Amino acid sequence: MNIAIAQLNYHIGNFEKNTEKIISAIQRAKQNKVDLIVFSELCVCGYPPMDLLQQSDFIEKCNESAYTIAQECDGIAAIIGCPTINNNDNEKPLYNSALFLHNKRIANVFHKTLLPSYDIYDEQRYFEQNKTFELLEFKGKKIAITICEDIWNINTTHAPMQEFLKHTPEMIINIAAVPFAHNQEYINPQISQQFSLPIIYVNQVGANAEIIFEGASKVLNAEGKIVCELQKFSEDFATINTEVDFLKQGDVASPYNKIETIHNALIFGIGDFFAKNNFTTATLGLSGGIDSAVALVLLTKAIGSKNIRVLLMPSQFSPDHSIADAKQLAENLGVHYDIVPISPIFTSFRQSLHPLFGDLPFSVTEENIQARIRGLLLMAVSNTFGNVVINTSNKSEIAIGYSTMYGDMNGSISILGDVYKTDVFALAEYINTRKEIIPNNTITKPPSAELRPNQKDSDTLPDYEILDAILFQHIEQNRSLNEIISQGFDSKIVVEILTRIKQSEYKRFQTPPILRVSSKSFGSGRRIPLVAKY
Amino acid sequence: MNIAIAQLNYHIGNFEKNTEKIISAIQRAKQNKVDLIVFSELCVCGYPPMDLLQQSDFIEKCNESAYTIAQECDGIAAIIGCPTINNNDNEKPLYNSALFLHNKRIANVFHKTLLPSYDIYDEQRYFEQNKTFELLEFKGKKIAITICEDIWNINTTHAPMQEFLKHTPEMIINIAAVPFAHNQEYINPQISQQFSLPIIYVNQVGANAEIIFEGASKVLNAEGKIVCELQKFSEDFATINTEVDFLKQGDVASPYNKIETIHNALIFGIGDFFAKNNFTTATLGLSGGIDSAVALVLLTKAIGSKNIRVLLMPSQFSPDHSIADAKQLAENLGVHYDIVPISPIFTSFRQSLHPLFGDLPFSVTEENIQARIRGLLLMAVSNTFGNVVINTSNKSEIAIGYSTMYGDMNGSISILGDVYKTDVFALAEYINTRKEIIPNNTITKPPSAELRPNQKDSDTLPDYEILDAILFQHIEQNRSLNEIISQGFDSKIVVEILTRIKQSEYKRFQTPPILRVSSKSFGSGRRIPLVAKY
Repeated sequence: MNIAIAQLNYHIGNFEKNTEKIISAIQRAKQNKVDLIVFSELCVCGYPPMDLLQQSDFIEKCNESAYTIAQECDGIAAIIGCPTINNNDNEKPLYNSALFLHNKRIANVFHKTLLPSYDIYDEQRYFEQNKTFELLEFKGKKIAITICEDIWNINTTHAPMQEFLKHTPEMIINIAAVPFAHNQEYINPQISQQFSLPIIYVNQVGANAEIIFEGASKVLNAEGKIVCELQKFSEDFATINTEVDFLKQGDVASPYNKIETIHNALIFGIGDFFAKNNFTTATLGLSGGIDSAVALVLLTKAIGSKNIRVLLMPSQFSPDHSIADAKQLAENLGVHYDIVPISPIFTSFRQSLHPLFGDLPFSVTEENIQARIRGLLLMAVSNTFGNVVINTSNKSEIAIGYSTMYGDMNGSISILGDVYKTDVFALAEYINTRKEIIPNNTITKPPSAELRPNQKDSDTLPDYEILDAILFQHIEQNRSLNEIISQGFDSKIVVEILTRIKQSEYKRFQTPPILRVSSKSFGSGRRIPLVAKY
Repeated sequence: MNIAIAQLNYHIGNFEKNTEKIISAIQRAKQNKVDLIVFSELCVCGYPPMDLLQQSDFIEKCNESAYTIAQECDGIAAIIGCPTINNNDNEKPLYNSALFLHNKRIANVFHKTLLPSYDIYDEQRYFEQNKTFELLEFKGKKIAITICEDIWNINTTHAPMQEFLKHTPEMIINIAAVPFAHNQEYINPQISQQFSLPIIYVNQVGANAEIIFEGASKVLNAEGKIVCELQKFSEDFATINTEVDFLKQGDVASPYNKIETIHNALIFGIGDFFAKNNFTTATLGLSGGIDSAVALVLLTKAIGSKNIRVLLMPSQFSPDHSIADAKQLAENLGVHYDIVPISPIFTSFRQSLHPLFGDLPFSVTEENIQARIRGLLLMAVSNTFGNVVINTSNKSEIAIGYSTMYGDMNGSISILGDVYKTDVFALAEYINTRKEIIPNNTITKPPSAELRPNQKDSDTLPDYEILDAILFQHIEQNRSLNEIISQGFDSKIVVEILTRIKQSEYKRFQTPPILRVSSKSFGSGRRIPLVAKY
């Protein structure tokens, strides 16, 4: 049997475009004499559709799309992901389903059993779980049709795969929408080894604000060896012949480079955010520091230097080298820049506020006014020229609240908000591998917000190596205060950092969407009460 | 049997305070010769604890609190709400439980069955559902211990009450944490009528950023008549004697006034937000318009005029009457005000941006710069004096994006973000019932943002009566475009409004927390993908 894998980039709610893409892939598959083409989870509407699933006309559109696609399925069968209606009263109104399309109709429907409700997932909010387990029989083969997590957790009581195995399937098809995280692998050789069955795993690719889907669909043989793998961060299409390819030896996995993967994921995430929103141009504040430098390089790689104009907004405290470094980077990249010194506006604010503040000493108020003037100037550029403001905060500073609301926290999308400061440095080194794009001085000088004379991050923060290690333990690894201290970290520093994380929850509530590249990013995957004492 | 109802205000994660309150109520009950005292759902940790439930030390603290409270239970029994650990592998790690404390120990544990996962609720994210149904036997009475929704949906397959009724209980105790919404009633006479059983319903009171809990705990007799009702928006304590009170006739429900209820809910919500965050003072921008006027009155009632300082920030386009109206209101309330004209700063911005913008005509850029200067000035006051910035946007403008990010959308809490503009007017009338607190001119003049010459809201928005009616149909009633048009609204206006709702999703992503008073508020109860075409 010839099976095609269509790894496509769907746009949530864009039924016309999604249907067109799916039909186009079916036509390509027909030309390739494919018997069955497989698409990913909820492909007709895109994933995750969230509360759009609660709108009746949205579900009608899903249904219409499925029927339209079915009309193309003559001489070929297709598996598509689509929400379907559950008519049982007092249950959730929908199923997350795989439709088997054949002979121009919806010939069979399979529902998802294990509905993730953790981190960024809320599937139990919308879907009822499947309770029946039948195989698909097609071209003399018995196939288990599974959706995403249904293939895992074989040891769970009533795991769907336990039920399917009772009917002795010959292969497993898994349609999925698996968010990318650099420190997680979702499909691994052990999975097909434990079933001794080949697996065809079809993931979506694309980025939807926070969440990035990497693609990397694959076919594993019964020994758990990868016999076919599709591209990462790109649409792709492959055809296998089950009689031939399931018997292949399998490839050796390519070596994994964390920083390279994050680098590629972010560029893809930025590009798709712009494409799906019909945005073309961007702006950001280029300070001469490392965060805005790395952000600008990634942005340039994603949307092109001619679509970017940056602002250099030196304060009275900015040393000359900052402006020089920022200029140098903009020139290296061929990005248009304007210099707007903020001192005159700052002076105007101080004069207007003098009747209220009198001669109070320079404080965090004045630091924040400067950060907010910068944020305001970027928004003015955005309003006038249509350039989308890019937020350049990193995960370390977002974690401990070392950034100014309505100032440097502004932006439509945060590029580095899930990247720790130490990894921002590593990204800079990676970017400079072949030649110096980011000025070395930007990488080697001590980080500073330059909001008061001779300010350095290290005045008020622990060393970033230590900070990031503690943050990782608490955020990604979910370790408690005592557990982290017992790992050997200085208890005073751990207490201080965990306290700052809690105290800055209110800032994160108003943070732009953050491109998620780790297993635990700030945003919809981490939900902490705002009014809590803990 | 004497049963006490403890309707308390819990602080999420503040175990010391919560435990102290609970023990203090137990001691009071002992003095009143109470046999059993009942507290609300998850009272040891407060509701909703959200992802704090995923921190192991948080669960340990819950457990410790339960044991500490149990030590007080000699000569009295207590029912408290507490998360408990589920040791079954591959299930959710916790239960949402009611602990029966007696003879200084945890004598019995009952788990919640129906775990809400819709709107603001995410209980299936954390909790496994209960599968066993036994009654509590105490003092010769058989009692069904239920948690929140377990008492509803009697017609559901395997509804918990169906299971309990098989064991012929003599009364129902329901511990709950029911969010307030002016257009929803959670416990009604039909519930006890269908069981022909008395119900003791114990709700929490308090506000946790978005969500307000109204209290209003009550006892219903077997005929569904209310024989005891505790206060709304206040801690309260009551004792009933089951032999006497279950036989009472019951009171007639007091007439319901929507605007009065919203008014009281908001004042309570503001006050508790300040109290639980240890905030004492606030600021806002007073424009002479209706939104900031109503917001200021509510704020004054919540935290007192001496704790507030407001800014009047006239632009070059502000007519004299706006300043006069704003001053008059501040004086009526005894609130300190400062006047900071924004023109000098605005001029400074225009000069600094002139090299970029040249002689482009006055546009939305300049409107937004002014709104953002105001936001920045308020934040400067906040930084210097510690006054919390109050957001004064209403639900109508948040819905259609008629507000400026990082400008008038600033704030730590949005007071009116779940109140439609027409209800803001009604609140103003209600506030002025006995005497003119809000200047009549503020109520009667046409609404305007005053960001360009002679600007009026009606230049670009439909009449607020029509706008709000359409918004209500779409947001609260979840009606689709076609459904709303079929109700008789002008299709062009409906299309325009629904399009604006979608297009402003990105603004709401960065909105402050909104005090929720309706059944569907912007915030965690409404989750729409940011990158969608629908």
